[in-house]
Amino acid sequence: MTDRKEFRDLASPEEAHEAVASLDIEPAPETVPLRESRGRVLAERVDAGIDVPGFDRASMDGYALRARDTFGADEADPVVLPQVGVVHAGEEPAVDVGAGECVEISTGAVMPPGADAVVPVERTHDVEDGVAFDTAVAPGDSVMAAGADVAAGERALGPGTELTPREIGLLSALGVDEVPVRGTPTVGVVSTGDELVRPGGELDHRAGQIHDVNSYTVAAAVEEAGGEAVLYPHAGDDYDEMERQLREAAAECDLVLTSGSTSASAVDVVYRVIEETGELLLHGVAIKPGKPMLVGRVGESAYVGLPGYPVSALTIFRTFVAPAIRDAAGKPEGERATVEGRMAVRERYAQGRTRLMPAGLLTDEAGETLVYPVDKGSGATTSLVEADGVVEVDADTDYLAAGESVTVELFSPDVRPPAVLAVGEDDPAFARALDGVRGPRYLAEGTRSGYRRLRDGLPDVVVASGPLEADEETDALASWTREWGLVVPRGNPAGIEGVADLAAADVSFVNRTTASGLRATFDAALADAGVDAERVHGYERTVRAHESPARKVQSGDVDAGLGLRASAAKLGLGFVPVGEEAVRVLANPERTEKDGVRELVRALDGIEAVIADLPGYGV
Amino acid sequence: MTDRKEFRDLASPEEAHEAVASLDIEPAPETVPLRESRGRVLAERVDAGIDVPGFDRASMDGYALRARDTFGADEADPVVLPQVGVVHAGEEPAVDVGAGECVEISTGAVMPPGADAVVPVERTHDVEDGVAFDTAVAPGDSVMAAGADVAAGERALGPGTELTPREIGLLSALGVDEVPVRGTPTVGVVSTGDELVRPGGELDHRAGQIHDVNSYTVAAAVEEAGGEAVLYPHAGDDYDEMERQLREAAAECDLVLTSGSTSASAVDVVYRVIEETGELLLHGVAIKPGKPMLVGRVGESAYVGLPGYPVSALTIFRTFVAPAIRDAAGKPEGERATVEGRMAVRERYAQGRTRLMPAGLLTDEAGETLVYPVDKGSGATTSLVEADGVVEVDADTDYLAAGESVTVELFSPDVRPPAVLAVGEDDPAFARALDGVRGPRYLAEGTRSGYRRLRDGLPDVVVASGPLEADEETDALASWTREWGLVVPRGNPAGIEGVADLAAADVSFVNRTTASGLRATFDAALADAGVDAERVHGYERTVRAHESPARKVQSGDVDAGLGLRASAAKLGLGFVPVGEEAVRVLANPERTEKDGVRELVRALDGIEAVIADLPGYGV
Repeated sequence: MTDRKEFRDLASPEEAHEAVASLDIEPAPETVPLRESRGRVLAERVDAGIDVPGFDRASMDGYALRARDTFGADEADPVVLPQVGVVHAGEEPAVDVGAGECVEISTGAVMPPGADAVVPVERTHDVEDGVAFDTAVAPGDSVMAAGADVAAGERALGPGTELTPREIGLLSALGVDEVPVRGTPTVGVVSTGDELVRPGGELDHRAGQIHDVNSYTVAAAVEEAGGEAVLYPHAGDDYDEMERQLREAAAECDLVLTSGSTSASAVDVVYRVIEETGELLLHGVAIKPGKPMLVGRVGESAYVGLPGYPVSALTIFRTFVAPAIRDAAGKPEGERATVEGRMAVRERYAQGRTRLMPAGLLTDEAGETLVYPVDKGSGATTSLVEADGVVEVDADTDYLAAGESVTVELFSPDVRPPAVLAVGEDDPAFARALDGVRGPRYLAEGTRSGYRRLRDGLPDVVVASGPLEADEETDALASWTREWGLVVPRGNPAGIEGVADLAAADVSFVNRTTASGLRATFDAALADAGVDAERVHGYERTVRAHESPARKVQSGDVDAGLGLRASAAKLGLGFVPVGEEAVRVLANPERTEKDGVRELVRALDGIEAVIADLPGYGV
Repeated sequence: MTDRKEFRDLASPEEAHEAVASLDIEPAPETVPLRESRGRVLAERVDAGIDVPGFDRASMDGYALRARDTFGADEADPVVLPQVGVVHAGEEPAVDVGAGECVEISTGAVMPPGADAVVPVERTHDVEDGVAFDTAVAPGDSVMAAGADVAAGERALGPGTELTPREIGLLSALGVDEVPVRGTPTVGVVSTGDELVRPGGELDHRAGQIHDVNSYTVAAAVEEAGGEAVLYPHAGDDYDEMERQLREAAAECDLVLTSGSTSASAVDVVYRVIEETGELLLHGVAIKPGKPMLVGRVGESAYVGLPGYPVSALTIFRTFVAPAIRDAAGKPEGERATVEGRMAVRERYAQGRTRLMPAGLLTDEAGETLVYPVDKGSGATTSLVEADGVVEVDADTDYLAAGESVTVELFSPDVRPPAVLAVGEDDPAFARALDGVRGPRYLAEGTRSGYRRLRDGLPDVVVASGPLEADEETDALASWTREWGLVVPRGNPAGIEGVADLAAADVSFVNRTTASGLRATFDAALADAGVDAERVHGYERTVRAHESPARKVQSGDVDAGLGLRASAAKLGLGFVPVGEEAVRVLANPERTEKDGVRELVRALDGIEAVIADLPGYGV
C-alpha cells in the first residue's frame, strides 16, 4: 500500500453520511404486477379510476323495495308486500321493483331498478300473500351506493406508500393490476480478497485461506434493506479478473460494495479502478470500526468500501449504507431498532475515536434489559451472532459503569435478547439439550470463565465441570457425568495406558486451555499420578474447545489429546479412559424465576435422552 | 343454503384457535443454498464442522516472532531482530522463525512455524540491522489461534434459528453452503365467488361484478406470515371448474383458503367438496366478524374458509390463520404488534359477540396515541387502509368512553399512525398537495363531517369549502379557490346556461351529498337565483365524491351534474360556470405544533404549483 492511500484526516461520521447521501443510487421507477408488489413502494399517487362498488349494492340478505312502502311498519302491524322476483350476487336483476312490491335479494347483489332500500331477512317473515315486514326503513338503508367505498377520481394511495396486504387489497378493488413502484437499487458485491474462498469450496489452511464471510453477509443485508444484491464471482488471486468484475459491477449496478481485503494486491486493484474510472470522496471515518471505509464512484456507479472484519463490515453497512439503500428504494425509515438497557458490567475504553461497541443483550428476572460488551477479538465471526447490536461510545468516554444506562442500536428490529444466557464449559450434552430452548445463547468459554462472569452477575446459568469450586452451590439445575481420558489414534499405536505415559519422551500431546474444567480435572489426575506437567510434551499446547484435541490427533499432529470418550467415538479414534467428571448446570441465584431459565430446566429434564446418544455419558 | 350449514352454536375464539392448531400444515424440511436462506428457519442444530480460523492467524499487521525474544523491550531499550522473510494473507509461509528472528506479517496471514506472537507495526521501527521492537509481548499476542473463533464440534446455531445476515455470516465462515431449513407451508388460495373478476379484467356493473379483493390480499398476507401462496385461476361461475380447482389445491397444498362468497352456488361447491373428501371441524366463531369462518380438511389438506368482506377476511386471517402458518414455517412469534392508546371518541356497541373493532391510529401533539373506530359499513375496501388494526371489545361492553385506554392489535408490526389526519371536503388540489407529506391520511367525507369530527377533537386538520361556519377560525393554514358549476356533455347539447335551467322539466341532474361544502355553495346559489330545489329533477339524487357527478354525465345517465371545472376538463366534458368557492385547510388548534401538521404546512406552501395544473383553480 502506498502513502497516497494513508489519509491522515479521518472524516466525521456526519461527513460520511453526507458523502454516501451525495451518491445517486436511486434507480428508475418501474411497473410490476400487483401480485408481485408486496413490499414495494408506490412511485406515484394512485387515484381511483373506477367507482367501488360500481353499482348500488345490497349489503344484507333480505328484500329490496321502496322505503316509503315500509313507512309505519312495526312488529305489531307489519306491512305485507308481494314478492315479484329474486336477484342474486353476480347477476343482472331481471325485474324492476314497482310501488308496493318487493324482490328477494342477496348480499352483494345489484339493487333492482325502482328499489331504494333493503330490509334484512331477519326483520321479515313469509306469509300467504307475500312477505311481511315488521320494520320501517329509510332510503339507502342496507344499500351501499355506487362509489360509496371509493369513487372514481378520489385519491386512493399516495406516493411513497409501502404496499402491504392492505394496500394490495385496495388496489385489487380498484382493478389495478400493474403498479407503478420505486425501482429496487441494484447493489453489486465484489469479493476482493485473494485469500477468500466461497462457502462450499475447500480451504487450504496452510496457505491461510478462509471462507468469504462478507459477500453473503453483505448481500443478505442489502436485501434486508430493500436492495437487490448481485454477487460477482470470486476472482481469487486473478487480479485482472478481479478488475474486470469491478468494472462490470460498476456498469451494471447502482452501487458497488467491496469489503476490505487484507491483501495489498487486491486493495491496489480497487484503488486503480477507482482512480481510472471514478473518484474517491472519502477515505476513513473517525469511528471505530470505520477507519477503512471508502466512499466514492466507480464508473457510473456509486462505490462504498467496507471494512474487512465481518462485524465491522456489517456495522458500517448498517450505519452508513443501509439508510441510503432504503432511501433509494423509497422504503419508509425502518422502525426505531434500539433498546435501552443497563450495563451489566463495567467496560473501559482507550479514548480517541467514537466507538461502536458490539453488545449483547440479556434480561434479568424482572424483564429489564441488561447490556454487555462482546469483544471476541478482531475478526471473530461468532461476534456476528453473539452480539445483538452496537452501543455508540463517545470518543471522550473512559468507561461505562456497571448499571449505567445505554442505548443499543439493534442489528435488526426483530432482534430479541436470548431466552437464556449460559456461560461455561464446552459440553456436547449441554449443547444438544439447548435444542429444546427457543433462542438460547451459550458462550462455551470454559468453566473458569463461567464462574468469573457469574461473580459479575452476568449469565443466567453456568455450565461447570472439574473439581467443585469452594463457593459453588451444590444444588445444580442438572448434572451428569462424562468419561474423559486420552484420545489417541485408532488402535492406540503408541500403546498409551494412562496419564503417566504422557511423560514419555516420544509422545506428543495437546492440552485444553486453563479455562476448561476438564483441564482442571486433568491437572488433578496428573498430580495424583505424580506426573510432573513439565515433562508432558505439549502440556502448554492448548486448545479451547472439547473436540479440538481429538481433531489434532485425527490429523496426525499429535499422539494424544485430552478429551472425551464421546469425541473419540464420534471421530472413530482410540480412547484411553482416565476417569469421569461431573458436569453441573448452576443457576444464577438472581435469575432462577426467569422464564428462559425455567424453559432450560424443562429442557434439561430430557437430558437422559440426550446423553443416551453420547458414549461415556451417564447420570 | 340448506339447514345443515346453519350451525346454531358458534365456537369460542379459543376453540377456533385449537381447531386451526389441530390441522397439520407443517411441510417437510428442505435444504436451500446459503445464498437463498435469508428469512428461513434452521430445521436442525448446526455444529461447526471446521475450525475458524483454520490456522493460527495474525490479527494485526506487524512482525511475527517468538515472544520470549521481546522480553524486557521498551521504548528506551528496544530489542532489534533481523527480518528473515515476509508472509502475506493468503499465502503459505516460506520461512520458519528461529530464535532471535522476525518475519513481517500481514493481518490474516498464517503464523510462520516457530513464531508465537505478533508485534503490531506501530510498536516497531526499521533500523539498519533489522527491526526494533519497543514493547514486550506474550505468547499469543495479536494472534488468533486456530479454532479460537469457533472450533470444530462446537454448537454454532440451534434449530429454530431464523437466518438473518448475521447467521448467514457465521454459516459462511463455517463453509456451510447448503442449509437445512424448515419447509415453507404452501397455501392455496381459491377464489369461489362467481361475481368476482380478477384485477385487470373488465367489470360488468349491471351484472353486479366486482373485483376479487381477497385473493391477492390473502395471498400477500400468507407471504407476510412466511407461507408460499398459490393462487388458483378464478373459475367464475363455472362450478365444475371451481370444484376441480379446490380438489387440485387440496392435493397440492398444505392449507387451502377460500373466502366467503355471497353466491349460494359457490358456497355449495365448497361444502360438497369438504363433505366428500374431508371434514368440517368448526363452523362459525363467536366473534364479530368471525361468524362465517370454517375450519376443516379437504382431502389431505387443511382448510379454512374466511369471511367474504376484505377487512373481515384479513382480520380473521391474522387472528387465527397467520399464527398457524408462522408456526408451521418455524418463524419465531412475530414481535408484539400492539399499541396502547386512548379512545379519541366515544363508541357504543350492541352487546352480544366479542367484536374486533377496526381502528385508526392518530397521535396528538404530545405524541400520545389516539384510537378511533373505523366503520365504513360492511364490505368497504377502503377500511383496509383507513384502519391500522383492531381493538378487541368484550361481548358485554356497552361502550368505550372517550379517553378510555385500549389496546390495538396492529395489522402489521410496521404500521405507524399517519403523519397527519385530514378530514373534510373532497378536493383534488388538497389530494395532490398531500403527495408532499410522508404517510398522510385523508378522509374525504365532506366539509360537514370535517367540522363535526373537529368538534369531537379527532382530525389534525379539516378541509372545508362552502359558506363559512359561524365558529370557523378565519386563519386557515392555506386556502385557494375553485370554480364550480354544472358539468354537462361536451357541447352542452341541452343549452344549459345556469342553475335556473335545472328546473326545466326535461333536464336531469345529479347532486352532491349534504356533507359536501360544494353542495352548500350550490344550495346558496339556488336560493340566490330563486330556484325551488324541489323543481330540480335529481336534486335528491346525490353522490359523495367530487368527480362522481361528472362521471354520471359522461356515462349519459344525466344531463348535468354539480361539479368543478377541473373535473369537466379532466373528463373532456362541457362546463357551465356558476361561481367560485374557497377551499380552506383549518388546523385543529390542539395540534398546530404537531410534526405532521408542520410537514403539511410546508407541503401546502407549494399549493400554487399544484393548482396551476387544475383548470379553474386560483389563490
